[in-house]
Amino acid sequence: MINTLYLPEIREMLALNDEAGLREFCTALHPARTAEFMEGLSAEEAFVVLQHAEPLVREELFSYFDHDKQVAIVESDDRLRVAELVADLPPDDRVDLLQDVKAHVVNELLPLLPMEERRDYLRLRAYPEDTAGAVMTTEFAKLSEALSAREALEELGKQAGQLETIYYLYIVDDTDHLRGVVSTRQLVSAMGKSTTTLGDLMEADVVTVNAVDDQEDVAKTVAHYDLLAVPVVDAERVLVGIITHDDVLDVLREEATEDAHRIAAVNPLEESYMRTPLLTLSWKRGIWLGVLFFGALLTAFALQQYENDLDEITWLVVFIPLVISSGGNTGSQSATLIITALATGDIKLGDWIRVVLRELIQGIVLGALLGLLGFLAAFLLHLAPDFQASLIIPVTLMLVVVCGTLLGSTLPLLFHRLRLDPAMMSNPFVAGIIDILGIIVFMQVARWML
Amino acid sequence: MINTLYLPEIREMLALNDEAGLREFCTALHPARTAEFMEGLSAEEAFVVLQHAEPLVREELFSYFDHDKQVAIVESDDRLRVAELVADLPPDDRVDLLQDVKAHVVNELLPLLPMEERRDYLRLRAYPEDTAGAVMTTEFAKLSEALSAREALEELGKQAGQLETIYYLYIVDDTDHLRGVVSTRQLVSAMGKSTTTLGDLMEADVVTVNAVDDQEDVAKTVAHYDLLAVPVVDAERVLVGIITHDDVLDVLREEATEDAHRIAAVNPLEESYMRTPLLTLSWKRGIWLGVLFFGALLTAFALQQYENDLDEITWLVVFIPLVISSGGNTGSQSATLIITALATGDIKLGDWIRVVLRELIQGIVLGALLGLLGFLAAFLLHLAPDFQASLIIPVTLMLVVVCGTLLGSTLPLLFHRLRLDPAMMSNPFVAGIIDILGIIVFMQVARWML
Repeated sequence: MINTLYLPEIREMLALNDEAGLREFCTALHPARTAEFMEGLSAEEAFVVLQHAEPLVREELFSYFDHDKQVAIVESDDRLRVAELVADLPPDDRVDLLQDVKAHVVNELLPLLPMEERRDYLRLRAYPEDTAGAVMTTEFAKLSEALSAREALEELGKQAGQLETIYYLYIVDDTDHLRGVVSTRQLVSAMGKSTTTLGDLMEADVVTVNAVDDQEDVAKTVAHYDLLAVPVVDAERVLVGIITHDDVLDVLREEATEDAHRIAAVNPLEESYMRTPLLTLSWKRGIWLGVLFFGALLTAFALQQYENDLDEITWLVVFIPLVISSGGNTGSQSATLIITALATGDIKLGDWIRVVLRELIQGIVLGALLGLLGFLAAFLLHLAPDFQASLIIPVTLMLVVVCGTLLGSTLPLLFHRLRLDPAMMSNPFVAGIIDILGIIVFMQVARWML
Repeated sequence: MINTLYLPEIREMLALNDEAGLREFCTALHPARTAEFMEGLSAEEAFVVLQHAEPLVREELFSYFDHDKQVAIVESDDRLRVAELVADLPPDDRVDLLQDVKAHVVNELLPLLPMEERRDYLRLRAYPEDTAGAVMTTEFAKLSEALSAREALEELGKQAGQLETIYYLYIVDDTDHLRGVVSTRQLVSAMGKSTTTLGDLMEADVVTVNAVDDQEDVAKTVAHYDLLAVPVVDAERVLVGIITHDDVLDVLREEATEDAHRIAAVNPLEESYMRTPLLTLSWKRGIWLGVLFFGALLTAFALQQYENDLDEITWLVVFIPLVISSGGNTGSQSATLIITALATGDIKLGDWIRVVLRELIQGIVLGALLGLLGFLAAFLLHLAPDFQASLIIPVTLMLVVVCGTLLGSTLPLLFHRLRLDPAMMSNPFVAGIIDILGIIVFMQVARWML
């Protein structure tokens, strides 16, 4: 819902070029709220309003705009002012943003950026997507271990405006190799003792990640150690950047969405649903639907083998969808439970025997439940011709549901063992395999019992 | 995988009661790593090792143990020493932990806790699960606005050891009403100016959450404003606690897992997969499987209506699983895409017309693809008797796939509109509805074309 409360006032100030009013508007509230009130403005209008904010506030306001508006503003004509804004952005956000800006605009903006920002941009852009290098920022506090705690605090005070986090100071040698880390918490505690140096305070056993590490592993590391930020080093342990807690939050949300998509057999989207072109979206779904189609085709062949039986005992047909959906649903539940437990580290590969046993027991319990329901439906609702025929349904359901829990749990574990993403063993995939099995089980049970 | 590298050495030190060695072991590495090396120890052994660590390190080491070991340690016999450990824990973790400890142990420990910790525990325990109050901690920096920046820093230095975060100071009046917030970043920047008070620095427009707010909304707020911590207030705006970024990470992971479970028709687990009793797990799955079973029963009744047709045209039967799984898979994809996009805020209710149009177009593209595959399979593989009969399959698949995308997108949107969790419109649910539709469409198309 767009907040239109102040739109008329802002537009009037823009029309009258009321500089004092616009300046006041930019500073009165928390930037996140101010940005909300600006949602209804066009990119051009918003850019004019931004000109009335101080550089620090301007950058923050801009960071709360939605991505499309940010891109539209960067692509607007006033290259000089845009370059000023882009130069002020945090290095990691700058790379993310310019990725979606037209290439010729980026090429025209680059020469207008200060040299340091330009180099920074080109270096960060080189890291592959989804790696630590692509998420990290290069603005962090880097100090020498000879400084005293008080000197360090004062130095930090001077730099605070430009840094993305001031809560860890990284201690490096002359060639930028990481030597240790000091938290602002330690610094504040040691303020009284004037002789304490950063070297005395620093923790040398630093948790680091490598610039080419997968962003999901980075997020897990930060969550495991409860860090506010994690330093990123290259192969020679040179400190190249840091990843802060807010970026980790974004990574975690992104990865959870990717997993959910994989579980539903959609190739993860690189952009949001609304921004992904329809053909790309159709392709990411179609490729899996095609694969699943060939699986489903096998059910048709399986059924063909039993055509003569079905000709004779036509009432069996009405139970086909019920049998295969019961197996498929149970399998999806198991697969999802195991995939999420593997993702959160709740289950490890070594637990596989316990997991399979647990699923077997659940399969028996759930199979008994559905079998009972199935028998009652077949017998009492006269879907099957007589008592003995009705017994086919509970026997089949029990077997199919147990197959569902066993396959639904072992297939993701197997994928994990093969170092593939267990979420690739998606629910429709598991369900597809159980469909085929379900039909074979159903027909064999029917043959055997009639 | 349990790290057994140092287990023999630790056990030897324990056997010899080598106090110096154990003390050294507790401090040499980052506590998270030390805790890893202790994974192979029994709860009793680990508790003895903990006795050799300083209180602060002991508490941190303990926090890295897995939950079961923590519970076992708290339930061990030495109530006095356990009470000492429990008193040192962060208030929010203490509540989470004691929740799983046997009630009589908790009752015996409570009188041994210092009065403040005991009151704190009883107050926090009263908040319902999944609310801000249940996640928050009560250890934070609360100062008066009259203090200067330097005084505040010094005060912070003294308290730093007991606080969970020192990165925001909260300014309250005499009756603990929240007046404003100052970040340590601002404090450090203002260190030079001795006359600046907290009142001058503080931001009065503070983002807060209410103690009874849902934890998922709290996580969204923190992520939206990129906060390190958010203050929790009661209905009278009295500051009762704060929620820090690491707890928000945990909430986000928990909620993502819950959504994934709901999407697969499993009632979200309160504990991890491995710790949930098998009967509880079976119940959380069985209740949905039962509901879905009654849906599937409708497919049986639908098929019964067409029994005469199926008797005459038996080849149609072999396509039943293929038709309904194609519709179900497409529907699951749409439902998951829409549910995740709603969860991340990428789609809002107002977008529903665009969303449905996008899904319609994708339905046509995907229906054409699967229809082509279906026709080729029916005609070239002689699953259908002739050319005209083969055409039934593509027409049916096109209609079923379009139904899948439309239902898969509109049902979660509808649930969202009704202020229900869109993830409740789970994939098996959507697939179940499409199963019934698919059979009716299939049979009607066949009647019409033959």
